[in-house]
Amino acid sequence: MICVLRLGHRKARDKRVTTHVALVARAFGADKVMLSGERDDAVVESIKKVSKKWGGRFSARYEKNWKKALRGFKGTTVHLTMYGLPLCDVVGKLRGQKNMMVIVGAEKVPREVYSLADFNVSVTSQPHSEVAALAVFLHEFFSGKELDKKFGGAEIILEPSAKGKKFARK
Amino acid sequence: MICVLRLGHRKARDKRVTTHVALVARAFGADKVMLSGERDDAVVESIKKVSKKWGGRFSARYEKNWKKALRGFKGTTVHLTMYGLPLCDVVGKLRGQKNMMVIVGAEKVPREVYSLADFNVSVTSQPHSEVAALAVFLHEFFSGKELDKKFGGAEIILEPSAKGKKFARK
Repeated sequence: MICVLRLGHRKARDKRVTTHVALVARAFGADKVMLSGERDDAVVESIKKVSKKWGGRFSARYEKNWKKALRGFKGTTVHLTMYGLPLCDVVGKLRGQKNMMVIVGAEKVPREVYSLADFNVSVTSQPHSEVAALAVFLHEFFSGKELDKKFGGAEIILEPSAKGKKFARK
Repeated sequence: MICVLRLGHRKARDKRVTTHVALVARAFGADKVMLSGERDDAVVESIKKVSKKWGGRFSARYEKNWKKALRGFKGTTVHLTMYGLPLCDVVGKLRGQKNMMVIVGAEKVPREVYSLADFNVSVTSQPHSEVAALAVFLHEFFSGKELDKKFGGAEIILEPSAKGKKFARK
């Protein structure tokens, strides 16, 4: 079970970025997202809607107490931060982990996260985006195989197309 | 020269996502971002500030006429869309291109983009994020080497760290 924990959501500012984090978690092979910070049911609902329409068994929920969730997690916890150890140096140790929590923050991450997480991992040591860090991390973790993941029970399935839009089911 | 063209920016809604697109372009080895849609000097300025502080030669500017920029581009144009051909099937043909424009849309992409672009490429056929699509595309294009890119003339340089934050220069 690969779970993504999004920290520090702010309803007014992070609506779209948090939604992107959750959609990336789903599309790149995670099983679950927990949204922490300000409670935002609209984001959780929109993720559930996407999952229903596009298939798979991804789940999303609000987590009030992120510290408890992080401390109590049975598995390896990985915090993505530009201050961490380079992805390439760490990902080999992580591949094959059955239970992993991947933590991504919003603007300010509490200092405790750095000590509570088993690994602090950087996807470049440059400022960019938790959305991108999560995607590239999962892409490397799954060795690119997540790109072919099938999502069972989908209402919509796309057919790859050189030009325009094609649907296998709609 | 690898250039990223961000289409359809809306000042009110896309401020943070467009900023993430631009920061990802820089961090993952592109040379330039052009922001199209509603003019938003604050986003352009914030990218310039990051580049100054964190080094490298990345440039950012507003592009009023995206169609002209796309049509007039001397090189290969690649539109990232979940409707396109799978990344793995296309990226081999693209590696080594010296001049490439990578196009990412906001919510609605004009149909012309699909026909004007040389390649429509999907990073999964699932809905997620243009930020993630751009990161994983550039990561595959550069075969992961972009993760070690050095940014010359930086005011800040981070030192990878297992716990906490370390600076090589600040």
